[in-house]
Formats: sequence, C-alpha cells, structure tokens
Amino acid sequence: MILLMYEPVPDHFTKLKQIAPHHEISWVSTENEAQELIRTAEIVLGNRFFLQSLPYAENLRWMQSNSVGVDLILHQKNVLIKKNIILTCAKGVYDAELAEHALALLLTLFRSLHLLRDEQNTKSWKRHRLPTLHGSRCMIVGWGSLGREIARLIHAFGGIVSGVRNQAQDSLDGDFTVYGSNNFREQLPQTDALIICLPKTSETHHFIGQHELQKLPESAFVVNIGRGGTLDDNALLRQIQEGKLAGAALDVFETEPLPADHPMWIEPRIVVSPHVGRSLEGPAFRWQALFEKNLERYVNGEKLLNVVDYQKGY
Amino acid sequence: MILLMYEPVPDHFTKLKQIAPHHEISWVSTENEAQELIRTAEIVLGNRFFLQSLPYAENLRWMQSNSVGVDLILHQKNVLIKKNIILTCAKGVYDAELAEHALALLLTLFRSLHLLRDEQNTKSWKRHRLPTLHGSRCMIVGWGSLGREIARLIHAFGGIVSGVRNQAQDSLDGDFTVYGSNNFREQLPQTDALIICLPKTSETHHFIGQHELQKLPESAFVVNIGRGGTLDDNALLRQIQEGKLAGAALDVFETEPLPADHPMWIEPRIVVSPHVGRSLEGPAFRWQALFEKNLERYVNGEKLLNVVDYQKGY
Repeated sequence: MILLMYEPVPDHFTKLKQIAPHHEISWVSTENEAQELIRTAEIVLGNRFFLQSLPYAENLRWMQSNSVGVDLILHQKNVLIKKNIILTCAKGVYDAELAEHALALLLTLFRSLHLLRDEQNTKSWKRHRLPTLHGSRCMIVGWGSLGREIARLIHAFGGIVSGVRNQAQDSLDGDFTVYGSNNFREQLPQTDALIICLPKTSETHHFIGQHELQKLPESAFVVNIGRGGTLDDNALLRQIQEGKLAGAALDVFETEPLPADHPMWIEPRIVVSPHVGRSLEGPAFRWQALFEKNLERYVNGEKLLNVVDYQKGY
Repeated sequence: MILLMYEPVPDHFTKLKQIAPHHEISWVSTENEAQELIRTAEIVLGNRFFLQSLPYAENLRWMQSNSVGVDLILHQKNVLIKKNIILTCAKGVYDAELAEHALALLLTLFRSLHLLRDEQNTKSWKRHRLPTLHGSRCMIVGWGSLGREIARLIHAFGGIVSGVRNQAQDSLDGDFTVYGSNNFREQLPQTDALIICLPKTSETHHFIGQHELQKLPESAFVVNIGRGGTLDDNALLRQIQEGKLAGAALDVFETEPLPADHPMWIEPRIVVSPHVGRSLEGPAFRWQALFEKNLERYVNGEKLLNVVDYQKGY
C-alpha cells in the first residue's frame, strides 16, 4: 500500500494510480489515521505525520520526503536503518526558487536595498556609492545542485565564482574552481561574498564560524540559504556589530523562528529573511513530479533518485 | 584643444595624450575656468560645467557626455545644432550596473524583501508564500542595450521575456518577441512584471500611464530603471493604493529628489530607490574607456560611438 501524507490533487492522484496500478493508494489527513494506516504501508510519500507514525510502521520499505534537508527525519536514523527503510529527499525540486532567493538576498546586500528601505521609512533621499556583484569574487560553500545553480546565476551577472565542496583536494567544475574543505580558508581574504548552502550534518555544524569569518575582508557580505547551524550565527553577529563585515542576509537560523529578543532583529546590516527561500507550498506542489518519477522507478525496480546516505546525512 | 570637465586620473590623462598627441589637453575645476577655456576648445569631454559654459564655445565640434540620458543637455539642443556640435552619450557604459540594479529591484518585489524588511523592524517572523521570477512573464519597455541586458538576466532566471521598442510592427530579437508600440498593450493583461528602461524624450513622456497600468493584472509588479517621467508616477501610485497592482520599485521619479511630502514615501508596496541604479562614481571612472575609444575614433576621422540623434533625443 502507498500512503500519502497529504491530500493529492486529482491529476496527481490519477498519475500515481496509472504508475502503480497494482498498489492500493490511501491518503490521510490526521495523525491518528496516519498511525493506523502506516502499519501496512510499503511506501510513504510526504513528510506530514511521518515521524509521529513511524513507530507503527511494519512493512515500510521506502519513504519519500518533500524536504531537501532531512536532518529532522534523521533524528530517527537508527529506527529507519533498523526497519530497513530507504529514505529519499526532494533535492533539486526547489533549486530554482532557492537560488533565486539567494540572488535576491545577495543583490539586496550589494545594492544596499535593506538600508535604503530603512531610509525610505524616514523619507531620506541619499544617493550612495554602491558596489556591484559584477566583478565581485563570490565563494559558494556547498557544491551540490543548489550551489551550482547559484554559481550559474552569479556568473551571469559577471561575478567571479568559486566553490567549496566536501573533499580534501581542489578541483575544477567547468570554469569554476572548487576548493577542498582544507584549502578554502586561504581564499577567504580575497572573497567579496560568501554564500552558504550546506546541508545540516554533524560535519557541517558551524562549518563557517569565527575563524572563517575573521578572514573575510571588512567589505564582505555573507548569505546563508542552506540550513541553520552550518553558520555560527553569534560569531557572525559579533563580526557585523564590530564593523568587521559589511552585511549579511540569512534565510535560515540556528533557532527558528528567530526569538523575539534576538539581537539580530535590530542589527541594520543583517537582513532577516524568515525561512522563505523555499516558500510555503501552493496548490501546485512542486514535488509532485519528483514523487511520480520516483514511484515509477520503484515499481520498475530501478534505482531511486535522491537516496539519502545515512552515513553522510544528505 | 581638448577640454576635460573633470580632473583626470594620471593613467587616463596619459592615454588621452597618447591618443591625441597633436592636441593640447586642459582640464578645469571651476565654472569660471570652463567658461574661459571652452572658447578655444574643439572637444569637450564630461558634463560638469558644460551647460554653463556652452554659450562661450566658438570652435566646439564634439561634446562627449558621461551620461546615458542626455535630456538635460538637450534643453540646449537648438544651440548645439546651430553651433554644429556633435553630441555623444555614455550609452552602454553603465548597462551592467543598471541591469544589476533592475534585477535587484525586481527580485525584491518577487521575494517581498521590502515588506520582510518592514516586518524585521517589528521583529515579526511570518513565513509567506512568494512568487518566483522563474516562470513569470516579464515585459521590458525600451529595447536598447540596457533593455537587452536586463532581458538576458531575466532569461537566466527562467523568466519569460518580451520587449517593447519604438516601431509599429512586432519583431523578433533572437528568442525574444519585441512588440511594436501600437501592439504591446494587448499583452499587458498577461504580464507579471513590467520593467521600464526608456530614454526621456517628448515621445516617451508618460509612455506608461493610467491606461497601460490598468491593463496589468493585480498581481503585477512595475520597475522603472530608465528616466523619471516616462512612467506616470501619480497614476502608478493610485493603482497601488487601490490594490490594483502588487508592488513597484522605482529608481527614477518625475521629481528628484522625491519631495519629503510625496505619498510614495509611505506606500509600503512601493520601493523608493534614490536614483542609485548608476551609483555615484568612484575614482575608477567607468566612462574613461569610452572617452579614450571615442577620442581615438575622432582623431582617426572615424564615425563616433553613441552619437545622439537630435531628432529622436537619444
């Protein structure tokens, strides 16, 4: 049985039935229903109620998440491994929107639109000298499908792109230099903007911390579009407060929602973007196509897309 | 004699001398000096003091402006024509920066960063459902070098681009449909974002007015990165106030600086960008290279770049 943790729109439901005609397909809208039906489910599609119903799963072989970052689900990693469940994530599905949001944040910093908005609210007309992304050196920390999409867009603006990936040695990806995690720190003093798009794993905790931030020039900008905790938020805040960085725009935070008394709210050079890089789903679920494609692979016995490596955590 | 209306940096001055070894080159730093030296000048490079000293010019053949929009200089069009002076503008020099600023404004509107900044200032964490430039239909009004650069960038984001140019019939420019000025209005109801980058001439005054704005969907955004007055600012404001447009970001206005009592300042869905699309010049003057290239063409008797058509006004 295939259990959907969401109410499918008719087109999507029809497609799933065509793809898997020999499977019963059910969907649930309450936690109780989920805990009841998951007992006999072979496949679960969608996050909602999954963690609460996982203890009741007896036949589950595959869980398809609609998230890119599955760190919350991986809190139950041991249960998933013990029950021999394959987990697939929604990597790639939100790349276009996330990369677009990253560029919106980056351009806001370069063109000072956050500070100009504050000036608008005091009716102050001041012309400023502004830097351009064009010609600026941008380092993208995290070189997956999202990082490469951000690289492509920055390159289109005439920005000079490099990347950082989880390997020791430097490498080339097309025109871009991708530094190994041991070597990238030497590049930080020549970096105008640092864009972080890392998954949250035990290895990436505070991957960008005080030590790395201190190496950036005072004119540098920082963007975090990945997961909270991969950047040391407090270290960033201190650097900004001390005038050792020009600005930052964060879509993810170590604590979300950002607590009302957090000093980040009132630091003008920090842009607080309330985790809207992947904004709330409309009726046209972006992950529908992935679910359909992966279900087709499952029923055909093919290798699933976006299988999460329980060792790596993404 | 070549008269510079600015103090040249040494490298630039050396290059100009190498390009035109048989011309005397002078530069001025006051209006009085300009009015004195322009009497014998054959060439003027740069805007500053030009309009004030033009009446004293007796031998002037060519004036190279460092502006893209020369509407202010063209207030003296009749004098320029009578004295047989060629005017060249700085078209293209600022395209990269202006297009980048246009995209910064456009992405701010799509990703709601202006309203999120206001929410940040009240410490309000609210997740919103946001539209994407990806997949949105964008119409660029003004299809010169700037308009095409904006088109290239929007296309890189997966936006669907069309243009409007000053001709009757529709045409194709590469992959983009460019509507004639008579036909583009029919496309407005299917437009998600209207980006205006028109020169200011008698023909473009209020080119986008009440009539055009009313045809846009209520979810549409408007950006003006060209010249104030090509958009009817008050008509735009009314449409926004009545909830008939989702937002606008303006870098140019009919009156600049925007008067302190102008209602645009306090309309949250309007972004007031204080004419910083081409931001103030730093020591590295971006127009130096154009001045050098055009001077070389002048001394070689070649056709100058960016000659302003006195009939068209750009």
